[in-house]
This record gives sequence, structure tokens and C-alpha cells, in this order.
Amino acid sequence: MTVTPEQQAEIDALRAEAVPTLRTVSTGMESVLHTAFPVLDHGFVRVVDYMGDDAAVVQAARVSYGRGTRKVNEDRGLINYLMRHRHTTPFEMCEIKLHVKLPIFVARQWIRHRTANVNEYSARYSILDREFYVPAADQVAAQSTSNRQGREALLPADQAGRVMDILRDDARRVYDNYRWMLNETDEGEAEDPTRDRLARELARMNLTLNYYTQWYWKTDLHNLLHFLSLRADPHAQYEIRAYAETMMDITHRWVPLVAAAFEEYRLGGAHLSRSALHVVRRMLAGETPAREETGMSPREWRELMTLLGREA
Amino acid sequence: MTVTPEQQAEIDALRAEAVPTLRTVSTGMESVLHTAFPVLDHGFVRVVDYMGDDAAVVQAARVSYGRGTRKVNEDRGLINYLMRHRHTTPFEMCEIKLHVKLPIFVARQWIRHRTANVNEYSARYSILDREFYVPAADQVAAQSTSNRQGREALLPADQAGRVMDILRDDARRVYDNYRWMLNETDEGEAEDPTRDRLARELARMNLTLNYYTQWYWKTDLHNLLHFLSLRADPHAQYEIRAYAETMMDITHRWVPLVAAAFEEYRLGGAHLSRSALHVVRRMLAGETPAREETGMSPREWRELMTLLGREA
Amino acid sequence: MTVTPEQQAEIDALRAEAVPTLRTVSTGMESVLHTAFPVLDHGFVRVVDYMGDDAAVVQAARVSYGRGTRKVNEDRGLINYLMRHRHTTPFEMCEIKLHVKLPIFVARQWIRHRTANVNEYSARYSILDREFYVPAADQVAAQSTSNRQGREALLPADQAGRVMDILRDDARRVYDNYRWMLNETDEGEAEDPTRDRLARELARMNLTLNYYTQWYWKTDLHNLLHFLSLRADPHAQYEIRAYAETMMDITHRWVPLVAAAFEEYRLGGAHLSRSALHVVRRMLAGETPAREETGMSPREWRELMTLLGREA
Amino acid sequence: MTVTPEQQAEIDALRAEAVPTLRTVSTGMESVLHTAFPVLDHGFVRVVDYMGDDAAVVQAARVSYGRGTRKVNEDRGLINYLMRHRHTTPFEMCEIKLHVKLPIFVARQWIRHRTANVNEYSARYSILDREFYVPAADQVAAQSTSNRQGREALLPADQAGRVMDILRDDARRVYDNYRWMLNETDEGEAEDPTRDRLARELARMNLTLNYYTQWYWKTDLHNLLHFLSLRADPHAQYEIRAYAETMMDITHRWVPLVAAAFEEYRLGGAHLSRSALHVVRRMLAGETPAREETGMSPREWRELMTLLGREA
Repeated sequence: MTVTPEQQAEIDALRAEAVPTLRTVSTGMESVLHTAFPVLDHGFVRVVDYMGDDAAVVQAARVSYGRGTRKVNEDRGLINYLMRHRHTTPFEMCEIKLHVKLPIFVARQWIRHRTANVNEYSARYSILDREFYVPAADQVAAQSTSNRQGREALLPADQAGRVMDILRDDARRVYDNYRWMLNETDEGEAEDPTRDRLARELARMNLTLNYYTQWYWKTDLHNLLHFLSLRADPHAQYEIRAYAETMMDITHRWVPLVAAAFEEYRLGGAHLSRSALHVVRRMLAGETPAREETGMSPREWRELMTLLGREA
Repeated sequence: MTVTPEQQAEIDALRAEAVPTLRTVSTGMESVLHTAFPVLDHGFVRVVDYMGDDAAVVQAARVSYGRGTRKVNEDRGLINYLMRHRHTTPFEMCEIKLHVKLPIFVARQWIRHRTANVNEYSARYSILDREFYVPAADQVAAQSTSNRQGREALLPADQAGRVMDILRDDARRVYDNYRWMLNETDEGEAEDPTRDRLARELARMNLTLNYYTQWYWKTDLHNLLHFLSLRADPHAQYEIRAYAETMMDITHRWVPLVAAAFEEYRLGGAHLSRSALHVVRRMLAGETPAREETGMSPREWRELMTLLGREA
Repeated sequence: MTVTPEQQAEIDALRAEAVPTLRTVSTGMESVLHTAFPVLDHGFVRVVDYMGDDAAVVQAARVSYGRGTRKVNEDRGLINYLMRHRHTTPFEMCEIKLHVKLPIFVARQWIRHRTANVNEYSARYSILDREFYVPAADQVAAQSTSNRQGREALLPADQAGRVMDILRDDARRVYDNYRWMLNETDEGEAEDPTRDRLARELARMNLTLNYYTQWYWKTDLHNLLHFLSLRADPHAQYEIRAYAETMMDITHRWVPLVAAAFEEYRLGGAHLSRSALHVVRRMLAGETPAREETGMSPREWRELMTLLGREA
Repeated sequence: MTVTPEQQAEIDALRAEAVPTLRTVSTGMESVLHTAFPVLDHGFVRVVDYMGDDAAVVQAARVSYGRGTRKVNEDRGLINYLMRHRHTTPFEMCEIKLHVKLPIFVARQWIRHRTANVNEYSARYSILDREFYVPAADQVAAQSTSNRQGREALLPADQAGRVMDILRDDARRVYDNYRWMLNETDEGEAEDPTRDRLARELARMNLTLNYYTQWYWKTDLHNLLHFLSLRADPHAQYEIRAYAETMMDITHRWVPLVAAAFEEYRLGGAHLSRSALHVVRRMLAGETPAREETGMSPREWRELMTLLGREA
């Protein structure tokens, strides 16, 4: 179950009543505020709060440029300019706060983005639910042989099924033992009054890394885009990418001009090295440079040719 | 002049129209949003945007503590608890964005707080206004002899007047020369078509440090409180303290429970060293420890006795 | 096993050869550099590199204070002054880089300190060793009833033994399944050529949170002290406190004056709230204030009386 | 004067005595350690301390990749790989501490890089020297008309001379008044015993932005490279670029492999937008796309054609 009935009731209540504000409002964002978007088998992303919109980026940029921007009368043009020239500070003037439910191994990757504020559900204070991630059959893939950190072809159905069974069985067993050691009913009573209750901060270590945790995660738009550029990338692990893609959709609703500029100038583009740039220039001049003269490695060369739509 | 007519018109327009939102609203903050609070002779602080309120701190804390806080049903108590035990992360879940007009030498102190987002008016792009800070006569004070970084008694009126004249005359002269070198009218035309216009990025270096600049400054509530604990402190230079005190007032309107907890547990309290704590214990036990046996320096001892309301 | 034979050989080699440098050297730190200090059952902390010493703090402070400090000719006095007045920036001028081996649940607490640089062993790239943490019998304690996040009395020996068995059995089983799914020998060959090898990034989710990971962790001295003030504190979970205490010992060797000042002015001291300070003043003046008139909660009052060495 | 005799004596003493260390040593860096490299008319950059070298980057990367990198036996290849794929954390494992003397207006740009530690000479504590920056005649340039934040052609010699005279005269006058208000001899006595001494924290506001300040600035290699990518760029103001170029030279001595990779993969390369990439592909396929069909602005198109070595 992704959202508990209590959580759903809270979301419904929050969406029921609008109040007046003198702040900037993003109507696209208001339409999805508080709503939980499902991710993976039990996870979700939902926006709890936000500050600013496309216009707030423009407003901040104009403080910097002062009278200099009087004539820049088109927001889209200015946002594209800022994104293209990596003038990042105006994008820091918008903020987003998310409530995320995610497997612990995903949380471990995610937390490496340091420029964010986090409040995580504490298993020292409270008891985690019996909810763990098991990849769907179409995600149970073999280790890539070319890329040490990737996956490749799917496992045959029977092997995938066996993997899923193992993950499920182990997760259930460790949880049963977790609760046995805690010796506590959902009502906070002792299951078995003849035994002590192990400290929660100890018992939790018996859980596997696919158990779900939750947190509030707050960051500014610049750092959100940086997160997305790394985690919505095909090289990111599928499980965190699933979150990043949902967050990309949310970003389009929140700040449509910024999101479009981001896809044009960052996500959809490519960085050429000095050597690669030189190769492109020579090719455009009608030459056919050989890799050996360029200083590029075979792998770099292959990636460049793929990027340029040429056979390698 | 603190606020230009254009700025005031913009403020009035922003305050005229409330729109509905599903976000948390702080009514205290809404009442002052966009309004420019004057500081010093030409400066101001105004809130441009904010995220969250007292309840948002509680909400974030409850994510961390999960079911554990079901029974903690009083927001004030939880906020006090968090402040007292320096559980700082829930306070990071609120955010504020200010528009500040301030002298450059104040901006130089302020910017040392790194955990904030900043967009400053750029004198590479635009021309600064003829606005500079001159301390009022009741702030023109002599160098402290006991504290190398403080001020002490006021200067006699005639000497203070002379200082104010110097500051004013020098500021005017450097500005006249700044504009002469820029050679540009307010309409962007050449003053004197027979001369070149010096690059703005060069001309600006002729201005003195009391010229006013402006910026958007955005930070979270935890870092705002940290700023206030240092800059609303009597040891802070008067000019930045004037801004901090205005921001403290704003904080009371925004998050009244947090602001009260901050004054009780941080601003109004004191930190005792290990030795000082030992001295207090001994005194409460009826002893009269001598400084020499405590390892404390004369200065530390004097400060402790003052803190405890004893003669040193 | 704490350190592998390969790691020990590397350490021995690193400690064998000193080379000349023109940099500041801390002789206390050199004596322990590279050495692995055991923590918990398989963990360790070892210093890989460092920058600066006590004198570097003083040197940085004197840049700030310029000629103003010409007469401050005693390093200890200046360091105490800086620590006492929370002038933190000079402490940021020293840096330390640690290699740490630690259980994943400890790593999850540790990583919340954001102002550090981290390179962690990646289980997407490589296979984790069969090493997991099991608390010793004298750490298997019951949930505290007064403090939701603490532990209390030890479990009776038989119950503790049962808990340790569960932790051990579950850790072994999930590891066996982890390796079965990976289907890879230590030599990188397929265990069972008839089966595919599951992607490492997926298989790892089957491990429990007490498995050991490793990382390089680099931070400045100010942030190290902040870490220690939170993690060497009695309220910290025992397992991370064990690391913090080892790091505190290392800090004494590295920067003895700073470490002593830290214990005097921060670790060993206490913060009094405004109300508590008022109570202390009244008590010292011979009054016997009643809690009810102070605005303090029963818990605050109790903690204050304990701090002051009075019966509550 | 760039370096005072006292500073030079200190530098000579520091370079005179090497001591043994078990740490990693960069011989290239040792050869320039402590030496002051002149920048602009009175400024300098000198390395005060450092941590790590090329090998430290590799070492940190191998912790992350564990056994996975056993076969990557060439440091250069791994460093290039990390730089190319923006795996930035291993570069954070090296640290550098600089002593910099720079004009205040340059310091104001520089400080916007927040991920660094700073101790600046304080004009609240001490008196600034009579040293200010005046651009050389070959830097006195006119405002760019195409780029609001740049300079263009040099001013004619007579106009440049007039600008230099103004900057010099104004700087001298404000300094004389600064010292008059301070009323303090170099020996710390009153110049004029009949007058009070104005507080230093007030008097300093009378100085112009071209006065020199000094600071210790410490950052990690990743953030240093980020600084260099922005400040060694032709769009950066000449005055800060002069510092960045000196720091680039130092970086080559310190970590030659990293510096070379940085120039190949970042400084010397270029980022193509999604549309630009599409244009390049079409051109390589023999097409001649018209700007109008690409969605690119005239400016973007012009910049792309210049980048590709084509006439626009």
C-alpha cells in the first residue's frame, strides 16, 4: 500500500481548503499540491510546499541586473539566457518541499546530494511498517558486462521469479524477527510480557535495505535541477530514476519555462571535450580525422560518433 | 530616500491582490509581506516570499518521530523541546526570502553567512544610485579601548559633525567622479559625446564602502536564527544589528512560537564552560571559590560574575 | 576481521617512509597516521591525511585580526578565546581525512552531517564482504521507557543471546542469498554457469543494515568538533558514539590545544536558558524560587537541578 | 609593494626548513609552497598549505569502486574518466589553502563561491594599509556595447590617464581622511591628542572598493576547479581572472594529471544544447539547416557557428 488511509485523509483535508495569500502562486503546482504520486511498488512523491514560480526567477535576475534588464521584456528569453550561461543563482530563489516514501537503498544514494534539508522518519523513535521493495519481473536484470555499475538483459522469467521470491522471503523473515525482538503490538503493548523489549535503535539493524523509509526533503530549484540531471539520467539506477522522472513531471507543472529550458540546454544537450570539439570542426570542414591522431580513447571516440549520429 | 516611487508602486500592487493557495499560510507574515521596513538612513528589509509557519516545523518533526509523537499534542511544547535540544533540522523546513537594501560594508559582513541564496544588484551591469550611509550623530563613537572591535563613548558633537561631513563629502566626490567616468545620463545617453564611457566594472571601484547595494537573500529558518544569534548580539556592529533587529521583529510575526523559543533558549540564555559550571555548583553549595583555584582567566571570571548578577 | 591483510600491508608501507615537506606538521598526528583504530566488532577509524595543527588555527586568526593581535603572544590563550566566543572560522582552516569502516545503520546517521566530503565503497560496482555487526552482550539493552530514542537496562543473558543469534542468523542467510543471486566467485567467475548473474545494484538490497561499509570522509576541524559535540554525547546511539570517542582521542593527538579548549568550553559545559539563568541568579542571591513561578516545565526543572548538583 | 618585508622574512623562514611527514607529498607543490605570486599592482596569491595530490584522487575513487577498479591500473586514465563523467567526489579529497591579497571589489566577486573557508583581515580590528588598485593603461577600457557586463576597446591614452589619475587621487584622499578620523599613528599613539579616535569599524566605510584586503581561503580541489571554470573564463572580469590564471598555474604544479584533464574535458570543451546537437548532426549528414527551422535565437546560432569554426 502506497499511502495509508490516515495519510489519504490528511491529503484530502489539505486539498479541500484554499486560503488567500499575497505570495506568488504557481497554478500548475497548486493543482498537484499534497497529492501523492506513486513510485515503485509502495513509494510516492508528493509536494508539501513550494516557494516561487517562473516569474520569481526572472524577478531575482532583475535585481542582479538592475536597470540593465529593463528592456528584456520576455521571461522565456531571460530564463533561457540564464540556463544557457549557467547563471545559476536566480534558480536558487525557488524552493520545493517534498514528502517522499522510498526504499532505504535509494535513500542512501539520494542523501549524497548535500544541499538539501531533510527530516527522515526515525526508526530509533518509531517502528517501521512491513513494507519493502521487490522489483517487478521487468526490472530483474543481469549485471552488465560492459558497465560495472549497470544492468543489462532481463533474467529469464523463472530465474527472475526465484530472485523475487528470495527478496520477498528474506524481507519477511527479517521483519518477523524485528517485530519479535521489539516485542510490541501496534497498540504499544508487550506481545509477550515474559520477555523484555529490545531497544528500537538496535532492532532496526535487522532490516534489509529494501525496506521503505520516509522523509521530508526540501531544496532549491537549482539544486533540484542538478539532482535531476544526475538521477533522471539513463546511467542512474532505475529505482532512483523512477523518482527523478516523477519529480521532472512535477517541475514542468511548477515552473514550465524553467523546465523547458533545462531540457533544451542541459538534459538534452551534450558536453564536448576540447578534442571532440576539434574533431567536429574538422569533420565539418570536410576532413575525415582518424581517431589515432586525436588523442581520444577508443571509448571516447565511440561515444562521440554515437552522439553525432555516425557509425563508430 | 529609502524606497523609490517605482518600488513603492510595485509593493502596493503586490499587496493589493490576494490569491487562493493550498499552502500553509502565516497570517502574521501575510500582514507585512512586501512592505519595506526602513533601516539606517536609506536601507530597508522587506519580505518577498516565505514558506511554512510554526506548524510546518511541528509537521517536519513528526515525520522524524513518526508514531512516536502521536501523544505530543501541543505545538509549543514540541517547538520548545526541539529548540532546547538543538534538534535543528525541523527548523530548516521553513524558508524566507528578503529584499534588502544595505551599505556595502554591511553586505560584506552579512555575506559571510554562507548557507543562503543571494542575488545582488550588479554594478557590472547597472549604475548604482547616489545613496550612501552616514551614521547619525548618536552613532559616531570612539574606538573602544577594551575591545579592539567595538565602539565606546560618542564623539563630542563638533567632532562627530566633522566626521559626518568628511564621510558625506568624500562619498559625493567619488560618486561625481564615478558618473563622470561612466559618462552616461540616466537615459543611457553619453553625457559628453567627445569622451568614451569607462566600463562599469571598472568605474565602480571608485565608490566608497558606505554606498548602498541591494540583494535578494533567501535562507531557511534555522540559518536565519543562527544569523540573528550572531548579528542581533550586542557585540555585532550597530549597522548590521539594526537589520538583525528588524528581522527579529519579522520572525515574531512569521513564526511566533519559534521566535519565543529562540529568545528563551538561545538569545536570552548563556553557555557556561566546564569550569564555570563547577564554580556555580560550588557557590550554590555555600562555598566561595577563589578565581585562582578555578583555572579561569580574570576576564572569564569577571564575565561569569556579571552573568550571575554578582559583583566581580 | 577488522583490517584485511592487504590493508595492513598497505598501512605498513605507508608508515615506513617519511618524506620531507615544507608544510606544518603535527607530530602527535604523524604518530598515528594511517594506523587503523578498531571500533565495534569489525570496524575501524584511521587517519589518511590531515592539514594544519594548533598553530594553523592561530595563524588564520591572526590574518583576521591583523596587527591587532601582535601582542597576543600565547597560542593557548587565543585558541581558548576563539572557542569561548564561538569564532569558528579559524578552526575551519584545519582539515582531516579519515578512512572509516562502519555498519550501514551507523553510516546513515553519520551522513546527516552534510559539511563533509565522502567517497563510499559502492555496492553497485563491487561485492560487499561477509562482515556484519552484532552487538556484544553488554550492549543488548531494552528500549528505554523514559526516552523514546534510548536504551536502558541490559537484557538478561539468555534473552540477549537469543537476540544475538537472530541477528547473526539473519545476516548470514541474507548474505548467502546475496551471493547466490550474484552468482560470482571471488575470482569473478560464475559460480553456476547455467544461471545469470543478478545486477549488483539489485542484489545488494537483500543485505541487512548491520553490514559493514567503508568510506573516506573528509571535513574541517570546526565541523569535526560539531560532529563530536553531537556524537560523543551520551544521547547519541552507542554504536556511533564508539566512533566519535576514537575520533576524540585522535583530535587530542592532532590539535591538543584545540581539543582541550573544546572540552572546557563546549563538551564539558552547559547552556542555560533565559529562565534557568534567572533561577540561578535568584538562588545565588539566597532565594529559593519555586518551579511554578519560573515558567519552566517539570522536566526542564529536573534537568536544571541535576546540572546544578541539587536534588530536584 | 606586494609583500611586506615582514611577510617576505616569514616566507623565507617557512621555505627554509623541511620536516619529515608520512603524508602524501606533491613535489610540484612543495616547490612553490609559501611563495607569493604577484597579481595586479599590489596583490598576490600564495599557497599556505595543501592536502593530497593526483594519487589521492585515484585512491579515493578506488575506495568507491572497491575491487571493481583492480584492473584500472593507470592513474591518468582513471582521472580522465572521472573528469569526463563528472564523478566529482574524488576531487573533493584534495584541499588547498591560499593566502590572497586582493582588491575589495574582487573579494566581493570571489566570496560568492560559498563552498570555501575564509578568514579575512578585519578592518574592525586593525588598520588597512595605504594600498589600492589602479588598472594599468592597457586595462582601462570602454564599456562594451554588445555585452552589458564587459569591456571593449581601450580608452585613448589621454582619457585612460585621466581615469587613472581620478582613481588614484580619490583613493589617496579617502585614505588620508580615514587615517585622520582614526587619529592613530603606526605605533598606536594618538596623532592629535586633542581629538578622539573614531571607531575603526566606522572609519573603514570611507575607503573605496579598490583598496586591498587579505584573506586565507581554503577549498577542495573540486570547488577550486569550479571556481577556475567560472573565473578563468574570458567572460570573467579581468581583475579576478588574473588571480584565476595564477591559481591555474599552481594547480598544474600541484595535480598535473587533474589539471590536464580539467583543461581537456571542461575548460577547453563546450556544451551543446539539444537543438545545437541536432544542427551538428544534420550538418554532418550533409544538410544545410536554416536557423529559422531550429528554434535557436540569432545569438545562439551565431555563437554555435563561431564555436564550430563556420562563418555565421
